Amino acid sequence: MSGAVSISLLEAERLAIAALLREEVGAAAARSTALALVAAERDGQKGHGLSRVSTYVEQVRCGKVKTDAVPAARRLSPAATLIDAGHGFAYPAIDLAIEELDELARKSVIAVAAIRRSHHFGQAGAHVERLAEKGLVAFLFGNSPKAMAFWGGKAPMIGTNPVAFAAPLGHGPPLVIDLALSVAARGKVVAAKKGGEKIPADWAIDADGNPTTDPAAALSGSMSPVGGAKGAALALMIEVVAAALTASNFGFEASSFLDGEGPPPDLGHALIAIDPGPTSGGAFLSRMGALAAAMAAEPGVRMPGASRLKHRAAAEQTGLFVAPALLTELRVLAGEAA
Amino acid sequence: MSGAVSISLLEAERLAIAALLREEVGAAAARSTALALVAAERDGQKGHGLSRVSTYVEQVRCGKVKTDAVPAARRLSPAATLIDAGHGFAYPAIDLAIEELDELARKSVIAVAAIRRSHHFGQAGAHVERLAEKGLVAFLFGNSPKAMAFWGGKAPMIGTNPVAFAAPLGHGPPLVIDLALSVAARGKVVAAKKGGEKIPADWAIDADGNPTTDPAAALSGSMSPVGGAKGAALALMIEVVAAALTASNFGFEASSFLDGEGPPPDLGHALIAIDPGPTSGGAFLSRMGALAAAMAAEPGVRMPGASRLKHRAAAEQTGLFVAPALLTELRVLAGEAA
Repeated sequence: MSGAVSISLLEAERLAIAALLREEVGAAAARSTALALVAAERDGQKGHGLSRVSTYVEQVRCGKVKTDAVPAARRLSPAATLIDAGHGFAYPAIDLAIEELDELARKSVIAVAAIRRSHHFGQAGAHVERLAEKGLVAFLFGNSPKAMAFWGGKAPMIGTNPVAFAAPLGHGPPLVIDLALSVAARGKVVAAKKGGEKIPADWAIDADGNPTTDPAAALSGSMSPVGGAKGAALALMIEVVAAALTASNFGFEASSFLDGEGPPPDLGHALIAIDPGPTSGGAFLSRMGALAAAMAAEPGVRMPGASRLKHRAAAEQTGLFVAPALLTELRVLAGEAA
Repeated sequence: MSGAVSISLLEAERLAIAALLREEVGAAAARSTALALVAAERDGQKGHGLSRVSTYVEQVRCGKVKTDAVPAARRLSPAATLIDAGHGFAYPAIDLAIEELDELARKSVIAVAAIRRSHHFGQAGAHVERLAEKGLVAFLFGNSPKAMAFWGGKAPMIGTNPVAFAAPLGHGPPLVIDLALSVAARGKVVAAKKGGEKIPADWAIDADGNPTTDPAAALSGSMSPVGGAKGAALALMIEVVAAALTASNFGFEASSFLDGEGPPPDLGHALIAIDPGPTSGGAFLSRMGALAAAMAAEPGVRMPGASRLKHRAAAEQTGLFVAPALLTELRVLAGEAA
């Protein structure tokens, strides 16, 4: 990044925590949220990274995100837990869901955490990765504020709707698949707007339905679904799983993650974990080894998530490189001299 | 279809059952399999319909599908069941899985059926639709013999890998999403080959990597993933969920569904059901009603699966229209004068 300045991971975490504490976000929630944003930035997911600190602060200031929310779990069965995020940040609720699922999936082979009254969960892959590191296979479905049209329609109605999946590979980091059902993640458009960059013309249409390279015009139009009708159908599936299943808002009902307008977004997520030991008679990791070997044997093939791991390794060596304006913003929000 | 001949649904079922019984397929398996093929034909899913009878018979004759298989369930927990399809047809195993999940999901909120030593399950949406008709939300993941390249690779290695999802809408038929992660389902290429039709150029590449409109060339090449890298990643996810989780074959290890060569395909499926009542505090159907109303309010928008329901309604009125050669084939296989 031209003109980028360097900042260590620890310093970025410290600033993000300080910015949230200064808004009276509870200590545990501030820490969980800040660490997730820095981890996304570290993994090259800038749309879910440090650029979110200021929009999160804005949402805290207007009461859209509750500072005193403490997520609570209610067991529905030995295989299901209902997590109330209390209109706070999503990350502490996801932390609790992971803790619950680690216990429930081991006991019941499969388990679901239905998370309600929640908010933006950022880098979806990072959450399922944590379950895969515990030996579980995991799916995460979340809807997001309206950004794509129903298939055949024009107005933005459903979210770009991330789906993430992870599975242990036996050694090394897990397989992590993390994608939004738009051609591009909306967070990338947000980051491009923040960075003053243009976007590719196939990412989105403007409010009049025309392709646009202007991220601001894209944000007031609709993102394009990946693969046309099929991507739109999968995004609709995620509305059902994330919102209807948890009695939460659909994309067309939710307030934005990006400004201080309106009530809490009141979105839901569904996190599903499966213990692959019993279903595979203990053969899961050897099967995953065979898959990884077949992929490694063909030139040009790589595991999904490889670029994320490359970004991560680089950031762990050299720290983060961020736009000077973003670092200034962070320091001001943290109450420090810019 | 030009030159098509008409046949009633009951007559099609009778012929398909007779064709399988004539090969000494067990009565329950023959009935389950025949009804599923006719239902797919009825729903406009010709690639999973009557054209499969002859390829199924071929696979029975060479022992690739076992005639005496009786699916067996072993409970892994109150939320999980392992179904051994015994290298028989998939449909009786799916029937058993649906019966098991109906009980388990109601008790445990979520439940999984891991199905192993299985075969082609045809119209994926029809299976989850049955669970949705019982008030459950359901996912089905299945891998299939190699037909698409790993992302970045050239050789066909993974299946076109169907995913299906269904959810009750409260009144009328459920929402059903059913798609393969190739641009087009491989079964449609098979049907086009059978019908002597060409295919669109963006569906597949031939063995040399060039786009082709010849279904035979496509079947010896690779299908293209929907949405590029994202579709390829989701197809890989399904290999893990359907095959690794059930200790079954990956696409690149499985024998074909379409000929009498090789051992049983030994593929797996994962069927997941969720009772949406507890997770939504009883609000699921009212939430689905709000979604359906929002879709109905916008001109040009329709529920996924609408064309399937239209085909179904037409076939229930007028019967099926099939190519004369296909009807002759069915009659010969059923041991009747063509």
